[in-house]
Amino acid sequence: MNIQRSDLQRQLEAIFTAWGMSAEHAATTALRLTDADIRGIDSHGVTLVPLYAQLRAEGQINFKPNIRVLRESPVTALVDADHMLGHVPSTFAMELAIEKAKKTGLAAVAVKNSNHYGAAGVYGVLAAEQGLIGMSFTSVWHGAVVPTFGKEPMFGTNPIAFVAPGKKHKTFFFDIATSTVAVGKLKLAQIHGRPLHEGWAMDKEGRLTTSAEAGLEAMMLTPLGGTRPMSSHKGYGLAAMVEILCSMVPGAFYAPTRETRHPDAKHWNIGHFFLAMDPKAFRGEGEFEDDLDDMIDALHAVSPVDPNQPVLVAGDPEEKAMAERTRNGIPVPDNLLAQVRDVARDAGAPWLLGA
Amino acid sequence: MNIQRSDLQRQLEAIFTAWGMSAEHAATTALRLTDADIRGIDSHGVTLVPLYAQLRAEGQINFKPNIRVLRESPVTALVDADHMLGHVPSTFAMELAIEKAKKTGLAAVAVKNSNHYGAAGVYGVLAAEQGLIGMSFTSVWHGAVVPTFGKEPMFGTNPIAFVAPGKKHKTFFFDIATSTVAVGKLKLAQIHGRPLHEGWAMDKEGRLTTSAEAGLEAMMLTPLGGTRPMSSHKGYGLAAMVEILCSMVPGAFYAPTRETRHPDAKHWNIGHFFLAMDPKAFRGEGEFEDDLDDMIDALHAVSPVDPNQPVLVAGDPEEKAMAERTRNGIPVPDNLLAQVRDVARDAGAPWLLGA
Repeated sequence: MNIQRSDLQRQLEAIFTAWGMSAEHAATTALRLTDADIRGIDSHGVTLVPLYAQLRAEGQINFKPNIRVLRESPVTALVDADHMLGHVPSTFAMELAIEKAKKTGLAAVAVKNSNHYGAAGVYGVLAAEQGLIGMSFTSVWHGAVVPTFGKEPMFGTNPIAFVAPGKKHKTFFFDIATSTVAVGKLKLAQIHGRPLHEGWAMDKEGRLTTSAEAGLEAMMLTPLGGTRPMSSHKGYGLAAMVEILCSMVPGAFYAPTRETRHPDAKHWNIGHFFLAMDPKAFRGEGEFEDDLDDMIDALHAVSPVDPNQPVLVAGDPEEKAMAERTRNGIPVPDNLLAQVRDVARDAGAPWLLGA
Repeated sequence: MNIQRSDLQRQLEAIFTAWGMSAEHAATTALRLTDADIRGIDSHGVTLVPLYAQLRAEGQINFKPNIRVLRESPVTALVDADHMLGHVPSTFAMELAIEKAKKTGLAAVAVKNSNHYGAAGVYGVLAAEQGLIGMSFTSVWHGAVVPTFGKEPMFGTNPIAFVAPGKKHKTFFFDIATSTVAVGKLKLAQIHGRPLHEGWAMDKEGRLTTSAEAGLEAMMLTPLGGTRPMSSHKGYGLAAMVEILCSMVPGAFYAPTRETRHPDAKHWNIGHFFLAMDPKAFRGEGEFEDDLDDMIDALHAVSPVDPNQPVLVAGDPEEKAMAERTRNGIPVPDNLLAQVRDVARDAGAPWLLGA
């Protein structure tokens, strides 16, 4: 079923309001989730609603938070998310970084006491829409990525997002997990009865496996690179860098030591880190954007190995999906729609999406 | 032959002075190169001297530069390297970022009109030595890394360095090329007559090759990830991100379009980007460092797949090499030493390293 973005937003708002969010918070959360859906980032939009319902049931989320600035300078801030779902405090934090960077050229805002914030890249878009470069990072409440040479998961999929504004090309939109692949790829292989690509995941003994079952049972992903000869230590280091920015900088919890170091903590306390930078602090108006367009044009012009598969630039698939889904709506599979309907019913929220 | 760092520095200073650098510039350049050697980063220390002699012969380097700040705010600056070798303007830029970040919490300095700056990470160390997080990026004057789906090199090995200060653990020192491996690994395979690991490099047709000869002839490296199923688009996007920070932000040249867009330019005009951030802008004194130490301890404690190969943390090999080489000197292979001797002779510099 294809659903218009505005309809999907209204449905999500109804659920979040029923969960106890203010109308404003519900609207922002629905906006950030559908920012992902409209760009084709299906893993980080409405599909997350059942997960959030589960986090709610576990008592992880404070739906009436006091989101506030704990420390602040003209170019930095530390935000307390007060255990809200991450989208509202993250939007607040990125908008604060944007406001500061517009005055100063550069700003960073870190967030603590937060939860899952959806797609990393959608916060970068907020900056790019104002002519700024935006960066966005988050830690995760449980480990999935295994350090090179090890056999225990020590990092989440710790994403890196970098979004930059162009003119002819709207944005350079880059948003990656620092694991080789996301868990979703293992699930997809299992559904289709296909083997995993060797290098994606490990079994419980820390051996690379091509069995989707063994991979999903162990839930140990390789860092980007996959294996030591293919430089998995680089992906491992990137994951650690993201952890430092999101956990050590704001004072959030590092998931693997949470239970030993904070045994009485009621909440997971994950962290995010946002950076906004104004290209006009370095160059004349429009010069950055012209040069970025030029690089993107050059990349599109690269000879492809397969004539039927042209070279893409980060953001191309998202731009294409956005154009298509703005016209035709967002495709939501029946089984997902049924799950969202169950969530709405359990929350006592109205169902607004028809039969 | 093992050479004490101070002796190696003196020899390099003698060469650089003979090339026309001021005593101060020669000292800084020698310092940054031996910062790499002492940490075991053999690809980015004294081994670069023959390359620099070649760049000098080609007229790329201005040894009497007017390095100056073109634009500045309390938290940003744009530096003109005036076509000097990169080490002096980069040291100047990172020190400027550090000075600003100590006052404000955060600063970024971009550099244009520069050349090769050695190891990315050594500039991050300058920040970490002052208790700050330091980041360092550079573009390169020629392409080597091929975008996913393409068969033309469009980026240099565009490194990312991130260095953070600990207490018990001196630094988290992370410094990677965004290619799967460096060119040096191909050369090493050729010397030893070994095949390449599949996924490192392509032949001239854009096909993955295990032939060191074919790989070195084509000089087309894969981005981190290696192949599309192993997420090479992530390494490709990281390389593009580094290019944006180093070329589009300061207004340096993007190498693949240099000849068409700047046909009359006498110099390559590569760029760098430096960021310094004070953890104390977000947290109390020492809290960041304690938590970083805690993460590093947890990583060291991870069960290894092979009991003889413990899990390492970024910076461990460099820390170990530094301790060892501070005691025993820096090992310089005979053939490299002979090359440096030739360079010294050609420059009319004295030879200070004995027989």
